[in-house]
Amino acid sequence: MQTFLEHAKSASKIIATLDPQTKVSVLMQMAECLEANNDNILHENQKDLDEATKNNLSAALMDRLLLNPKRISDMAQAIREIAALKEPVGRVLEGWVVQSGLRIEKVSIPIGVIGIIYESRPNVTSDTAALCFKSGNACVLKGGKEAFYSNHVIASLLQSVLEKNDLPAEIISLLPDSSREGVVKLIKMDKYVDLIIPRGGEALIRYVSENATVPVVKHDKGVCHTYVDKEAQLEQAIAIVLNAKCQRPSACNSLETLLVHEAIATTFLPRMKEALDAMGTTIKGCSKTQALLHVNLANDEDYHTEHLSNALNIKIVESLEEALWHISTYGSSHSEAIISENYTTAERFLNEVDAAAVYVNASTRFTDGGEFGFGAEVGISTNKLHARGPMGINDLTTYKFKVYGKGQIRA
Amino acid sequence: MQTFLEHAKSASKIIATLDPQTKVSVLMQMAECLEANNDNILHENQKDLDEATKNNLSAALMDRLLLNPKRISDMAQAIREIAALKEPVGRVLEGWVVQSGLRIEKVSIPIGVIGIIYESRPNVTSDTAALCFKSGNACVLKGGKEAFYSNHVIASLLQSVLEKNDLPAEIISLLPDSSREGVVKLIKMDKYVDLIIPRGGEALIRYVSENATVPVVKHDKGVCHTYVDKEAQLEQAIAIVLNAKCQRPSACNSLETLLVHEAIATTFLPRMKEALDAMGTTIKGCSKTQALLHVNLANDEDYHTEHLSNALNIKIVESLEEALWHISTYGSSHSEAIISENYTTAERFLNEVDAAAVYVNASTRFTDGGEFGFGAEVGISTNKLHARGPMGINDLTTYKFKVYGKGQIRA
Repeated sequence: MQTFLEHAKSASKIIATLDPQTKVSVLMQMAECLEANNDNILHENQKDLDEATKNNLSAALMDRLLLNPKRISDMAQAIREIAALKEPVGRVLEGWVVQSGLRIEKVSIPIGVIGIIYESRPNVTSDTAALCFKSGNACVLKGGKEAFYSNHVIASLLQSVLEKNDLPAEIISLLPDSSREGVVKLIKMDKYVDLIIPRGGEALIRYVSENATVPVVKHDKGVCHTYVDKEAQLEQAIAIVLNAKCQRPSACNSLETLLVHEAIATTFLPRMKEALDAMGTTIKGCSKTQALLHVNLANDEDYHTEHLSNALNIKIVESLEEALWHISTYGSSHSEAIISENYTTAERFLNEVDAAAVYVNASTRFTDGGEFGFGAEVGISTNKLHARGPMGINDLTTYKFKVYGKGQIRA
Repeated sequence: MQTFLEHAKSASKIIATLDPQTKVSVLMQMAECLEANNDNILHENQKDLDEATKNNLSAALMDRLLLNPKRISDMAQAIREIAALKEPVGRVLEGWVVQSGLRIEKVSIPIGVIGIIYESRPNVTSDTAALCFKSGNACVLKGGKEAFYSNHVIASLLQSVLEKNDLPAEIISLLPDSSREGVVKLIKMDKYVDLIIPRGGEALIRYVSENATVPVVKHDKGVCHTYVDKEAQLEQAIAIVLNAKCQRPSACNSLETLLVHEAIATTFLPRMKEALDAMGTTIKGCSKTQALLHVNLANDEDYHTEHLSNALNIKIVESLEEALWHISTYGSSHSEAIISENYTTAERFLNEVDAAAVYVNASTRFTDGGEFGFGAEVGISTNKLHARGPMGINDLTTYKFKVYGKGQIRA
């Protein structure tokens, strides 16, 4: 493992200073190479599918694993889009001249070696490899064992392009020991690895966060709220709540608990329920809600739950303060929204709610790299530090200070 | 401990949204309060000094511990300077409008609860408390046990000002259990503590980094280099090297190993040695250096050492590449300098050296919050992520995205 990571570290120094033009050219060749090797990839993918069938994987997991010509061409297209992103390295983030006459520039640079732990979708292999490459980082990928053959063929093809361009293959590598023990070792190798991004189940993320000595950017759970204020436009509120809950309930930015100001509950909730019923949403509510709607009682555990399904809690609150208290108690600091026409109420919500993204009069479903205009998304960070919320390619860089002198010494 | 940290967390929500004017007023009162309680502080400080005498603390440590009216007034002045800094919370770091018409702002916000672990200087207590307060954070301070009485009286005085202003005293608190066990608990309380800044010995920092589940910003060692290129102005090089090594050898940004291009070694090194001899510098050198100067041999361990004293290694290199290799092998990614008039050489050095601060034709001693124009310094981070190099008060903030809609739902 150590020798392997030493190679990744050395490779990271080569990719870190590679010129932008070469990076784009290599990425375009990678895209082409995947398409040209369509049959080869499908052949390896079939091995994973055969294993999956043997192991009785669910239809949903089988679908995540499946590749076909369309999906391979989508992977290639994603690489081309990453190639076309604005060069993330060398951006001057700030620049100024100090008293001593030194000129200081704060400049973006690659992070170094990034370890990414993820699950069954094979396209994550090419997506993250391309994102790391474009941002000048070496990557160590640890995919799910269900996708073993698919990930290997994809990584080998990308490496073959690196070698054809006289670049070290170790710029993109799969963790050789892909067992749990391999992960345990990897996350403690802070001498060689600069960042770990775990994407997967809660247990994995928790384990990595607790045991890593390498810095970790987590993609944790999203328990998101929408607060319909007494001064909300009700039609707008209904449309936004429906979208936040039902458009894709499995997403981390989807709505879990609807908070409603008591002054509008009687008018709003029956109409809201009708719209939700039409979408097949399962509703639970607080005791006040039960006085208005025919629903089961929501308990403390419900308020803490990320449903990942078309299920919703409704709670009637007496005031903005109670809504803020509920969000701060049960929320996961991911995405929170208020629907209100009142300036002061909206301002308070935006300022007082501690979350990666806070919304006025919009659906929390917009918390997404693409929707934020970042291009390809690295993920949605639930960290408070380094990167928070939707992560674009720029979040795969850190910075250094370049200091330009003319002989200055310190007095 | 948990109850204590719950209070700190609650307090962090109050200070996070306190208006700038109140923060300034409270800080000015804190400065006044320290000066008004001069005798009280000196009385408590004397208890620490008595203990120190009993425990035979070194003269250097005694001096770090000692307070007098001048030092108390300096502490008050430092708080006033922090009060005068530009408001760090609410800066719009970026802002844009996306396709869907949403207006997005990336806005600086406080981090939350910051744990700071430090050693004997009592002024760190008031400095860091003021920096955290100004940046809207609650702090949990764990000072050295040598400064027990001094830290307690300072913290109590600051808390008395908080209470006089109807603010929770827990915005600034000392860790109740200041034993090693207390620290061990603190660094795993990621539910309540958002950042740990350890300032102290290497062993402490290593321990904290390895065991914390809370993110850590380290202040590690500095093994800094200056490379005198064959195209350097030699007078300038001598002045810069002298400054980097001798102006304050105990600082982490001071020079440890001088790298000299072989083409100028014969002209440069005898003159350089003469200047260093006049400053009493102890010199070791590589075998090539020994052929020119009468010095002891520097070995591998010397090149890895942060001397913190007026001692220097000299190594003659054949090329820029060898200098870059040496820095990447032995450097600590803190501060590195090149002295050269050659544009391409200087550019390569700036781009290829991986360090928090890279210099052309200036002394590495400038790696400092004050010299960088940040005002009061939080420290010098050797992290790659969140904050790198000199940390100003803005590095005690993170960000959130504020999203302004007019009813947008995701398609």
